[in-house]
Parts: sequence; C-alpha cells; structure tokens
Amino acid sequence: MPLLRFEGRTDEELKTLLEAAHRAMLAAFKVLERDRYQVVHQHKPGEMIVEDTGLGIPRTEKVVVVSVTSRPRTREQKEAFYRLLCEELNRACGIASSDVMVSIVENTDEDWSFGLGRAQFLTGEL
Amino acid sequence: MPLLRFEGRTDEELKTLLEAAHRAMLAAFKVLERDRYQVVHQHKPGEMIVEDTGLGIPRTEKVVVVSVTSRPRTREQKEAFYRLLCEELNRACGIASSDVMVSIVENTDEDWSFGLGRAQFLTGEL
Amino acid sequence: MPLLRFEGRTDEELKTLLEAAHRAMLAAFKVLERDRYQVVHQHKPGEMIVEDTGLGIPRTEKVVVVSVTSRPRTREQKEAFYRLLCEELNRACGIASSDVMVSIVENTDEDWSFGLGRAQFLTGEL
Repeated sequence: MPLLRFEGRTDEELKTLLEAAHRAMLAAFKVLERDRYQVVHQHKPGEMIVEDTGLGIPRTEKVVVVSVTSRPRTREQKEAFYRLLCEELNRACGIASSDVMVSIVENTDEDWSFGLGRAQFLTGEL
Repeated sequence: MPLLRFEGRTDEELKTLLEAAHRAMLAAFKVLERDRYQVVHQHKPGEMIVEDTGLGIPRTEKVVVVSVTSRPRTREQKEAFYRLLCEELNRACGIASSDVMVSIVENTDEDWSFGLGRAQFLTGEL
Repeated sequence: MPLLRFEGRTDEELKTLLEAAHRAMLAAFKVLERDRYQVVHQHKPGEMIVEDTGLGIPRTEKVVVVSVTSRPRTREQKEAFYRLLCEELNRACGIASSDVMVSIVENTDEDWSFGLGRAQFLTGEL
C-alpha cells in the first residue's frame, strides 16, 4: 500500500525504474506482489532542489526523490528499503546511490481504501 | 482543511470531479462549506501504476487516486468518506467505484496555516 | 529535511521564491544551510482550488500552497515558520500573506534517507 513518487527527469527509464522500486518494496516490506501503487511526478530543472544537509553527497541530473506513504514499518524494514532501493535503482537504471533520496510518512489501517468505497484493512478483505 | 489530490486523466471532468469530491468531504467530515483545498495532479499513462493488492479490483484509464491530508477523523468518518466519494464520483462523473483509491495522512491543529502567516486553529479564528 | 511543495503559477519567480522559503525554514526550524529539499509542482487554473474556510481571506492568481514534510517541530517553530514564510514571500516575490497556505506533516528520524541507502539520522552521520 505504499505510494511512491519519483521526482526526476528519467523519462525513458520510467518503467524500469518503477519495477526496480517495487522489487525493493517487496523485499523490504514483504508486501504482496500486487500491492503496488506508484505515481511519478516529473520535474524540470529549477523545480527540484536537492542539497545534502552538509553530508557531502554529490547530486547529478539523475536525482530521484521517493516519497512513501505506508502503514507502520519497523526501523529495520525501513533501513532495508533504503539499501535495497539504491541497489535496485543502480543495477537496473544506473542511478548512483548518491542520487536517491527517500522520505516516509506513516498512516494506519483505516487510512486506506483500495476501491469500491471500502476500507479493505478494516473489512477483513486484507 | 483536507488537501485532495486527484491523480488521473479526467481533464474535462475536472470541475465536476472536484465538486463531487468536495460534497463527499462535506458530508463525511462535516467541514465548513468553504473548507475546500484541492490540488489536482494529472498524469500520463506510465506515470501511474495502480494495482489491487490481489483484491481483484479492475482498473480502467479513468482511475483516480485521492490523497487526503487532514486533522484527525474517526474511523466512521473515514469509512463514510470512502463510500460517499465513490457514490459522488460515480453519479457525477461516471467513474466506477473500482477506479477510486484513497489514502489519508493525519496531522494536527498546529500544522495548518490558511493564510496571513497565522495558525488559525490555534489563534481561535477557527 | 523538510520537503517543500509550492503549488502555483509563479514561473519566473521560482528561484527567488524557493530561496525566500528556505530562508524562512532556516530561521524558524534552525536547520543546516544545506538542509534544503524543495520540489515545485506548477498547476493550471482549475487544478487548484484554495478557498478560505470562511475566514474571509482573499486569494489571487498568485496563491501558493506549501506542503512541508518534517521531523517533529514545536508549535512555536511552526508558528514562526508561517509568519516568516509570509514575510519572505512578500518581500522577495510580492506575494501577499493572504495568498500563502501551509500544511505540515510530521515523521521521525528513521523516515529519512538523504542518499547512499542509509538513514543518516540513525547512523550518527547527522
């Protein structure tokens, strides 16, 4: 049930990139294969500023910002996601791990309706 | 005070769709008539992947993803919103309830400024 | 570590606007100079509806919606941010304080990876 938003300029790599990100999600959060909800926002230069909080992380024009909305995950799951996401994006898309920024916002079971006007985590369907 | 984001390709239905969604919000959350803050992001095919977590929910090219940021609401209010949103979007825009996905993120009174540099839920203005 | 999203039509003022917003963030939240992560979404008329919850706040075509994702901040820090953001946007961009709406969503230290597949608030790097 996470919603991913890639914000970058990787147009032709889009499909590959989304698949790579979903593999990281599957492995880190142990979600179901079809628990896949991804939305991409593409931005022109000047619409994204991604500095580094002084960490000395270089950014290129391939930078990707991934915003995840998810039910609660453990610290270990999140750390695994950060690591696996970088591995997958590097392997599949040639995106350096220095170009991958992630932030997560958590909500709860009652905050999701996957369709049909129902809250499937509450109805017992999920 | 919710911020809605419709992510789909319903360009000509936009006004109708936003009005329908606001009616669902008014009825479910009992907000004020002018408590209306809606932002639409429109996406090309390939920028949105909306599967179904294995629930067997079919999606069409009319799929809409609604992301709500709101002060806390009860479980009952949220369930009412999911149901009413589907009813309104179906009736007004012909969007099937299988094409409506919703997620909610909650924040608190101090997290909103509606203008003038003030937090109106804290100042007593609201 | 906040992510800012300006949603409006101020294309030529973009750089100035982002710098003004970052100055407000620096002053209100006391973040590091390079703790700067800003993403702009630009919208056509009809894609944004920003009413006023009955507060009598007039909006113009310059209206800006700022969505901040941040680690926890105090009420005082948030109130300072709202005030300073309006001051900076007014001074630098001529945007009226009645055209500035803000909402904040909070997360925690483990919810951020600034690159390299690591959660820098957990590793001791930050």
